[in-house]
Formats: sequence, structure tokens, C-alpha cells
Amino acid sequence: MSTPVPFVTSLAAEPAADWRRALGAALPGHRICAPEELDAAERAAVRVAVVANPEPAALAAFPALEWVHSVWAGVERLVGTLDPQIRIVRLVDPDLAQVMSEGVLGHVLYLHRRIPEYLAQQRAETWRQLEQVAASRRCVAVLGMGHLGQHAARALRAVGFEVLGWSRTRKTVAGVETFGGTGTLPGVLARADIVTVLLPLTDATRGLLDAPMLAHCKPGAALVNVARGPIVDTAALLDALGRGALSHAVLDVFDTEPLPQGDPLWSHPSVTVLPHVAAPTNRDTASAIVAANLAAYFRDGTLPEAVDGARGY
Amino acid sequence: MSTPVPFVTSLAAEPAADWRRALGAALPGHRICAPEELDAAERAAVRVAVVANPEPAALAAFPALEWVHSVWAGVERLVGTLDPQIRIVRLVDPDLAQVMSEGVLGHVLYLHRRIPEYLAQQRAETWRQLEQVAASRRCVAVLGMGHLGQHAARALRAVGFEVLGWSRTRKTVAGVETFGGTGTLPGVLARADIVTVLLPLTDATRGLLDAPMLAHCKPGAALVNVARGPIVDTAALLDALGRGALSHAVLDVFDTEPLPQGDPLWSHPSVTVLPHVAAPTNRDTASAIVAANLAAYFRDGTLPEAVDGARGY
Repeated sequence: MSTPVPFVTSLAAEPAADWRRALGAALPGHRICAPEELDAAERAAVRVAVVANPEPAALAAFPALEWVHSVWAGVERLVGTLDPQIRIVRLVDPDLAQVMSEGVLGHVLYLHRRIPEYLAQQRAETWRQLEQVAASRRCVAVLGMGHLGQHAARALRAVGFEVLGWSRTRKTVAGVETFGGTGTLPGVLARADIVTVLLPLTDATRGLLDAPMLAHCKPGAALVNVARGPIVDTAALLDALGRGALSHAVLDVFDTEPLPQGDPLWSHPSVTVLPHVAAPTNRDTASAIVAANLAAYFRDGTLPEAVDGARGY
Repeated sequence: MSTPVPFVTSLAAEPAADWRRALGAALPGHRICAPEELDAAERAAVRVAVVANPEPAALAAFPALEWVHSVWAGVERLVGTLDPQIRIVRLVDPDLAQVMSEGVLGHVLYLHRRIPEYLAQQRAETWRQLEQVAASRRCVAVLGMGHLGQHAARALRAVGFEVLGWSRTRKTVAGVETFGGTGTLPGVLARADIVTVLLPLTDATRGLLDAPMLAHCKPGAALVNVARGPIVDTAALLDALGRGALSHAVLDVFDTEPLPQGDPLWSHPSVTVLPHVAAPTNRDTASAIVAANLAAYFRDGTLPEAVDGARGY
């Protein structure tokens, strides 16, 4: 039996145990355990840990730690707080991209087909047909063209939308007009009827969509944020929605999660609140991917691609 | 200038004038006029009329009428009431299939991603993540595999759903498991998580989804009707929703349209009411298609494929 692998998390006891079970089943011959199960000698020998939103301080218990593998794609809590010598590997799950882009497509169609307005009409028992433009005349911007963003851009294109792709460094995707760098963002926002946010949360993207940037949006545009709450300035968003500068926001992520009771977003008529469900991690799929990476490392020391600490993703 | 073509409709004056203008622009050299603009000699010479939900009696003013071209796809009001000698041609618009299948895809994703439940949670300020299955494990039945149904089935398949296609006579579509005949319908309903209705309204489909047929549905299945209201027995549907046998219905069509004020469907927590907008006809596209068919007829007598009076579509 090789060195135990601690699973370090701030999750509650029950989901943490579910994860340890799933990871253990996917990685026979290795022991996946809670940190407190290890004695001092075992802790000193740990070189890799699996993490799920850990308290960074909890990782200090492992002085020889070389790398951590997150079971999730978002690792912004770790970047900048962990010792920079420790490599951070995040989950890259092809199923996750499929689930995320299916969610984005659903939200974009919900806005494109004016479902929030029809739901309001239903509450008022009003039968009125609103003008409907063709998908080919609806411009959708995808902000963030990493693995998830590119998948979503292709799915939107396949349904017939005009798609603009924006990212820090310009990417190339067939059928999608792409842009790179912050200087091009105002021009992208000015053209988009629906802006979808799939960016990682980094120092460069925190507050990226603030009041001055949102002011570049096309009048009446809608926003979909399935990335991280702090990328969008919530006060600026509420102001733009209140003035009708933006028509609707579908928000799956928030500055504080769960969204606190009484938060004005809950009852805002132009906001659809979802409880961070755009890309729910599939525990079995994720465990299999993490286990395959750990097995390769234990076999011959192979390390998966790590997060770039300077970029933050 | 050739024989005038009357545009016969029960539409209000303004939309009727809009249609005459669009049709006239698409068919230079021919006069598209309101029936009352024609004198007796002109009426007697009319062999073709363009129609948009006409009172069948209004067509009796044209004794030499050979065929009518509907600007819409649904012609159930004409079938069986018009003189059987008069051919009925309905609109087959490739853009319509695109718009319809985009609407169906949006409604299916809305149900698949549990948006009605999340909207109810939002009203209660409840943050709770519901279980989400992958699209590949969600079975969607498409009832009606004509031009519109096949297009929708392909769009659903492309997003990853398991798709069953059912029609009177079995069709073949790549990646879709197809069935033909009423005898196979209970088995299709028993497997589907989401049942979408794209059937024409005929004597055979009126009330097809009645209480005994709905009883074959998988427990907790959802229904999308974008075809015609009377295909589904509304009382049976309400009963199934009330008992939780069905979980939700997205209804774009009704027995009476507009849906009357006070109808229980408006305020039912498990019903999404849409005002017949699944496939709004694009006047310009539809006019171009009708004009091309009329031009071919005036040139050499070519007639487009007509509705089969026995089948009703």
C-alpha cells in the first residue's frame, strides 16, 4: 500500500465522505483519507493531496506537499494563497464542458425566446405575442474562450446564433469571430445582444464588468454569468437593470454563496437566480479523471498541466 | 396585368394590409387585393387565392377557385370544410422549421435544467441545488415526425438527448429511434422524460393524448405542446399535473386562443403558458415562398404539393 492521499476540503462531513468513497473506488491500491486520519509520519510523507475548496491553512499540515489536484475547475481560492512551490492542478472534465455549454445554450435560448417576459405576462394573464428575431440576427458574446467557453461558443453557433468570442489572448474557433485583450472588450459588448460570462476569476477579471465597462453594452442587452460572481460588479449591474440599460440577467454565481436571504437579487423582476448549477460536477466522472492523473503520477512521476500562478488559471 | 389574387383572411385590417403589401412586393406584375376590391367579373375569374385562416364561407365568393395557398403551416380549419375539389397548399418554410426547433430545444432545455423549479425556489428565496442528470440520460419523445418534427429531433439529438420519434407512419432519422402507428405510442410515452408534440391536428390526432394515453407516461414526465391545443385533452392534463403524474407542461397552444382570462392554466404552478409563439411566421420569408409558388403556377400551371384531404395534412 503506497502513501495515503489526504482529501482536504471545507465540505460538510457527508459530501466529504462521498468524495473519499468515489475517489477511493476509482483509485484501487491507494488510500484516500481525511487529513485527521494521518499520523505525523504519514503527514510528513504526503506529496500530493486531492482538494475541494480547502482552507489554504489546512494544507500547511503537509510540509513535503508538491502538488494538489482540485476536483473542481475553479481554483481561485488557492491561487496566491498557497506556497507558490506547490503546483495546483484543476479539473478539466470534457463532460463538464458539455454540461456547462448545454446550460449556457439553455439560458441564451430562454433570453432569445423572451421567456422571462412571457412568464411575467402569464402572471398578469396577458396574451401578447412579442416580436421574435431569428437566431442568426441575435449576437451572443462569449467572454472567456478557454475549454468551457470554446465548447459553449460552438454549441451556440450550431443553433444559428452570431457568436463573438473574447478572451485575454485571442483564440480561433470556426464560425466564431474572436477578439483578444481588454482593449477589444468595449467593441464586443457594443455588438452583443446577449453577453455570457465564462471567464476564470483572476486579478485581471475581478470587477472586469464594472459600471464603465457595462456602459459599453448594447442598449437592452442581457447578461448570463455562469463563471464567478465577483467578475461582475453587482451594484453596477443592478443600476443598469434598473435603468433598463440592460434588460435581464441570468445569474448562476454570486459574490456570496449561498445568496443571502433578503438580497435584492432574489426578488428583482429582471434577474433569474440559479443556485450555482450551470456545471454541477459529476462526482463519478471527476473522481475517475483525478484518479487517472494520480495513478500516472504514482507510476512514473508524470504531472498534469498545472495552473499558471501569474495568470491565475 | 394578370388576374388579381385575393388575400382571404379573418385577420384584422392592419395585419391583413401588411400581408397584402409583403405578398405584392414579392410577386411583381400581379395584384394582391382584398376580396371586396374585386367586382363580380373579377371574382368569377379567380382560380387561386392566398389565405390566412379564412372563414371557409368567404371562399364561396370565387366559383372558379382551383386552389388556395395558406401563408401558415396549420390548415386544419380548411380541411373538411372547403369543397374537396379545391386543393389546399400549406406553407412549408425551412426557416419555420429552424425557428420551431430552436423553440422546442429551448423548452426542452428549460425543463431538463429544471428552470421552473428554480424559478419557484427564487420566489421563496431558497438556495438548493437539485439533482441534474446528463442530457444523454434524458429521453425526449418527438410526436409528429414531419418536416418540423424531424428538424426538432435532429436539433435535440445534436445537444446530446436520447430522442425517440413517433409518427403515424414510421420515419427514419439518423441517431433517432423511430416508431410508427398508434399501437407503438404507449411504449414511447413510457420511456420519455419529456414529451414534445409537433403533430398536425387531424381527426386522428384530436384528443390523441387523452386520459388513458397520458396514463402511459413515465411518472413525473413533462410535456411540451407546440402543435395544436386539441391534440391534448386539457382536463386530463390538468388532472395528471395535479396528481404529480406529470411534473410540468409548457403549452404554446390551447383549445381557445387567446387563452381566456381566468382559465386555470394561467395560474397553474406546473404550467408555463406561451401565447402561440413557438414558430411565429416570418412575413417576408413566407411571402417569398408563396410568391414563388404563385409565379410558377402563373408561368406554366405548376401546382405545389397539396394537403391530403384524407390525412388532413
